[in-house]
Amino acid sequence: MEEQQRARRPGGRAARVGAAVHQAVTELIAERGYGTFSVADIAARAGVADSSIYRRWGNLETLLADVTLTYLNERSPMPDTGTLAGDLRTYAAAVAREITGPEGLALLRLVVTLSNSGQQGLQAGEELRAERTRQLQSMLDRARERGETAPDALGVLDHVLAPMYIRVLFGLGPLTPEYVDGLVDRLL
Amino acid sequence: MEEQQRARRPGGRAARVGAAVHQAVTELIAERGYGTFSVADIAARAGVADSSIYRRWGNLETLLADVTLTYLNERSPMPDTGTLAGDLRTYAAAVAREITGPEGLALLRLVVTLSNSGQQGLQAGEELRAERTRQLQSMLDRARERGETAPDALGVLDHVLAPMYIRVLFGLGPLTPEYVDGLVDRLL
Repeated sequence: MEEQQRARRPGGRAARVGAAVHQAVTELIAERGYGTFSVADIAARAGVADSSIYRRWGNLETLLADVTLTYLNERSPMPDTGTLAGDLRTYAAAVAREITGPEGLALLRLVVTLSNSGQQGLQAGEELRAERTRQLQSMLDRARERGETAPDALGVLDHVLAPMYIRVLFGLGPLTPEYVDGLVDRLL
Repeated sequence: MEEQQRARRPGGRAARVGAAVHQAVTELIAERGYGTFSVADIAARAGVADSSIYRRWGNLETLLADVTLTYLNERSPMPDTGTLAGDLRTYAAAVAREITGPEGLALLRLVVTLSNSGQQGLQAGEELRAERTRQLQSMLDRARERGETAPDALGVLDHVLAPMYIRVLFGLGPLTPEYVDGLVDRLL
């Protein structure tokens, strides 16, 4: 993880600080869960000054959203299979795998928590969703450019992502491939 | 068992304790939010012994789920308008009103929290959802008995309730009547 981050953020002290802080957050989330540690805890774990974190990210919420976005982009990049059905099925399957995996519930709860933890959390959560929505929109735009009929991004949220999120949040059984593909087929 | 039977009979000491405890929980939720008070806090506020609460509800999670179910049944009873479209539109509009109201977010977060707070919370959350699902199922069964084609209860969860829940949890704008009716029409 640290090696990967170092590779992608080449060079310099700022890059080393960034990698160390991301690594510290990832470890603290794994050990304790979201909502249980402070900027001071992260700084101590990463071996940097609190002020370095505040200077770069501004606040805890923005840092958490940044780490989450990096994680999502690594684990669930938007696919480009050549057809909209293929793209959406691949994307939905990746999301299903993530949210039912060991980190998944923590991830969902972080997004819910950010949305409800004051102005900074709201803004950080909004930027995280905006970035992922922008990626999803590119996928849908590519389909339209190929001449396919595509739903809008909110349609994907409402009828593919939301049912999966709610079933996981409510503890309602596994997300089978048939169920996930069914959501995509129904939308298309 | 004897205690439960006594509790269900109107009047008498058990009924007074039940009302006082429900009232205390409602006040504590309004003042402090879910997850911030204990059985001891509730007992003190209601003027009853901790042991009365444990004897009747077993644990905090079951009590919270009981109060929530009572609240939902009072505020969003399942409608019986004579048509499935009418029933579902009325029901969806009531849910939209509840979850965007002052108590709504707290309510949604309680259900999410129950699902993720150990075995007792899981069971309490499950019983709450099971009871509301039974009520929804009766509504769908009535439609079938009238000869209408009805979706199953999970279809209503996936495509009417889940999109509304997620939009509120993610802080994504208001649930307009057009949007809510559109979810129902799309499902039917």
